[in-house]
Amino acid sequence: MEAYLDNSATTRCMECVTEQMVRILREDYGNPSSLHKKGMDAEHYIKEAKAFFAENLKVSEKEICFTSGGTESNNLALIGTALANQRAGKHLITTAIEHPSVINAMKHLEDRGFSVTYLPVDRDGIVSLAALEEAVCGETILVSMMYVNNEIGSVQPVEEAARIIKKKNAKTLFHVDAIQAYGKYRILPKRMGIDLLSVSGHKLHGPKGTGLLYVNEKVKIRPILFGGDQQKGLRSGTENVPGIAGMAEAAKVCCSGLSEKVDRLYVLKEHFTEGIRKLEGVFMNGRTGRDSAPHIVSVSFEGIRSEVLLHALEEKGIYVSAGSACSSNKPAVSRTLQAIGVKKELLGSTLRFSFSFETTKEEIDYCLEALAELLPVLRRYVRR
Amino acid sequence: MEAYLDNSATTRCMECVTEQMVRILREDYGNPSSLHKKGMDAEHYIKEAKAFFAENLKVSEKEICFTSGGTESNNLALIGTALANQRAGKHLITTAIEHPSVINAMKHLEDRGFSVTYLPVDRDGIVSLAALEEAVCGETILVSMMYVNNEIGSVQPVEEAARIIKKKNAKTLFHVDAIQAYGKYRILPKRMGIDLLSVSGHKLHGPKGTGLLYVNEKVKIRPILFGGDQQKGLRSGTENVPGIAGMAEAAKVCCSGLSEKVDRLYVLKEHFTEGIRKLEGVFMNGRTGRDSAPHIVSVSFEGIRSEVLLHALEEKGIYVSAGSACSSNKPAVSRTLQAIGVKKELLGSTLRFSFSFETTKEEIDYCLEALAELLPVLRRYVRR
Repeated sequence: MEAYLDNSATTRCMECVTEQMVRILREDYGNPSSLHKKGMDAEHYIKEAKAFFAENLKVSEKEICFTSGGTESNNLALIGTALANQRAGKHLITTAIEHPSVINAMKHLEDRGFSVTYLPVDRDGIVSLAALEEAVCGETILVSMMYVNNEIGSVQPVEEAARIIKKKNAKTLFHVDAIQAYGKYRILPKRMGIDLLSVSGHKLHGPKGTGLLYVNEKVKIRPILFGGDQQKGLRSGTENVPGIAGMAEAAKVCCSGLSEKVDRLYVLKEHFTEGIRKLEGVFMNGRTGRDSAPHIVSVSFEGIRSEVLLHALEEKGIYVSAGSACSSNKPAVSRTLQAIGVKKELLGSTLRFSFSFETTKEEIDYCLEALAELLPVLRRYVRR
Repeated sequence: MEAYLDNSATTRCMECVTEQMVRILREDYGNPSSLHKKGMDAEHYIKEAKAFFAENLKVSEKEICFTSGGTESNNLALIGTALANQRAGKHLITTAIEHPSVINAMKHLEDRGFSVTYLPVDRDGIVSLAALEEAVCGETILVSMMYVNNEIGSVQPVEEAARIIKKKNAKTLFHVDAIQAYGKYRILPKRMGIDLLSVSGHKLHGPKGTGLLYVNEKVKIRPILFGGDQQKGLRSGTENVPGIAGMAEAAKVCCSGLSEKVDRLYVLKEHFTEGIRKLEGVFMNGRTGRDSAPHIVSVSFEGIRSEVLLHALEEKGIYVSAGSACSSNKPAVSRTLQAIGVKKELLGSTLRFSFSFETTKEEIDYCLEALAELLPVLRRYVRR
């Protein structure tokens, strides 16, 4: 049996997505910028995808910009708005537990003369709104906050955050990295006070190499890639038509009957966490109820190195992550786990289990059985 | 009948490429950064693609960086090296007929304090090597030159250019935009003195959203996208595994039996240009023999607006470009045609016909017949 429980790293492409992409690769291969029918046929897919996301997010089509993925979306949001608004101030705010594509874009902006405040989080990985309120000042041009943390599944109070930000400085832009949240939460940027929102295709059973950035039409933003002025100049380069259409198709499926799908995910997650609680020397990081994301569980295993357990599970066809897969192959210490105060001896003993709508109860049970069997065996081999 | 003669805008994805991508989308969907088998299976495709391109270009695997396409490759090459080497000087050189992704990245660098020399070209669209020699100075950190022009198919003397550059300033880097050349010319960067080389997947019957940049290991370069440090930190973001594998597959097919394929293309091109010469009031721009690219012909039609002819051809199922498709939908005046001194009244009367290995003699004949039939009819309707 196989249990793919690494869906926050990436998901399997849905069959309907693959079929849609194949149709375009085979037949509708035109360049959307070409003036003839083949170009218009290709452009049609992009327009349809924009129309879907605009309707889904309740925003305007011209506020959707397609990118090559979540990393580019986050970079465009941060670097693009920081440079376009630097006359209004050079202060940026983010949190201590962001994805590297936010943290490292912020570091790049620090090198370019911006100052960045990193907000602390509590033991559950929830950002301090008091610290946010204190940090926003007249010089603050941008706050960037992730909706769902990719390692422990903590959910930030983005609506309250938006209210606090706008109250302190109506001009401060609010970017939300929704890469782990879109397709699990109903997100309405305009109603929630979100000015920029990042989405990635391959986290929702869509293709890799695809993403989008919602940019409120009032936001001043500069491109970070320059060229033929596709997408109104915000993102030059021939659009990845099959990828864009594939991502839209995946999002459509994920978002239809969303609340039932999410309910089912929470039931699975509860089943998993109940099973985890029965194991010895095992700690779950962050919240585990319906106040946490429905698809991510972070577990620390006392006395066992995460890589050892990861590979032992792998031998049984169970695929999980040590930390997150977002930092290329490097077994670095997790910034998120440190920020929520996980004990030093457990930092290197933590695995992330992440589910998707395709995950079954059988897979969860198989994984729990494997853990129950493996933990005592592996602990026996620990050097004391 | 249909004749797709817009292959320099984009090409149809090859069937073997589509099949390879489908296999990966369905089965090998892991994140290459994941430590388990699914991740390693995905990483394997990237390693194989790197190995192919390294062997094909006779460079080292670690010198290949995958990107989201030609625009990103050119931006990374220019912005990445300019910023990394600015202590050695702030002078850049390019030509008057580059793709917008080079021209506009250069303009961005001008805004950031760099000075740029735009070299003139002759009537055939060939850069002046004397002007190049004069321009390179102690402050010159980078020269960027396209191998094959995307609008008229002129071929730059890149090897001689490299020699001249290195003779005047051994430290000056040489970037070649080979997006229209790779898969038509055998390119050996190290032997030819090229330090950085841009390639795009969808110009070679590979998928859109894919590209690569060869970066000589001695080149100092900074990333333009920041995140999880994939690809040794030069290009963060989860790799587009199906896209990368698809591009490699397409390149493999294009480059096998290359000289026979190119010979056949030249025979087709000669057949086409002979036919064009028989028409009245028609001028070909740039060279048309084997000293020009095998797949691009630019033709000006006296007294006919290019868009009118483009749509008349479209009605017969013949797809061509007015100028190039790279500048999103905008019917702007071509910088290249102006630079080679095309008469003002012909600037808006020019079409680009571009072929690929899939183009047939029947398609060429069908297009020539359509032109012979349409030109007199359309000219009758011209206001005098």
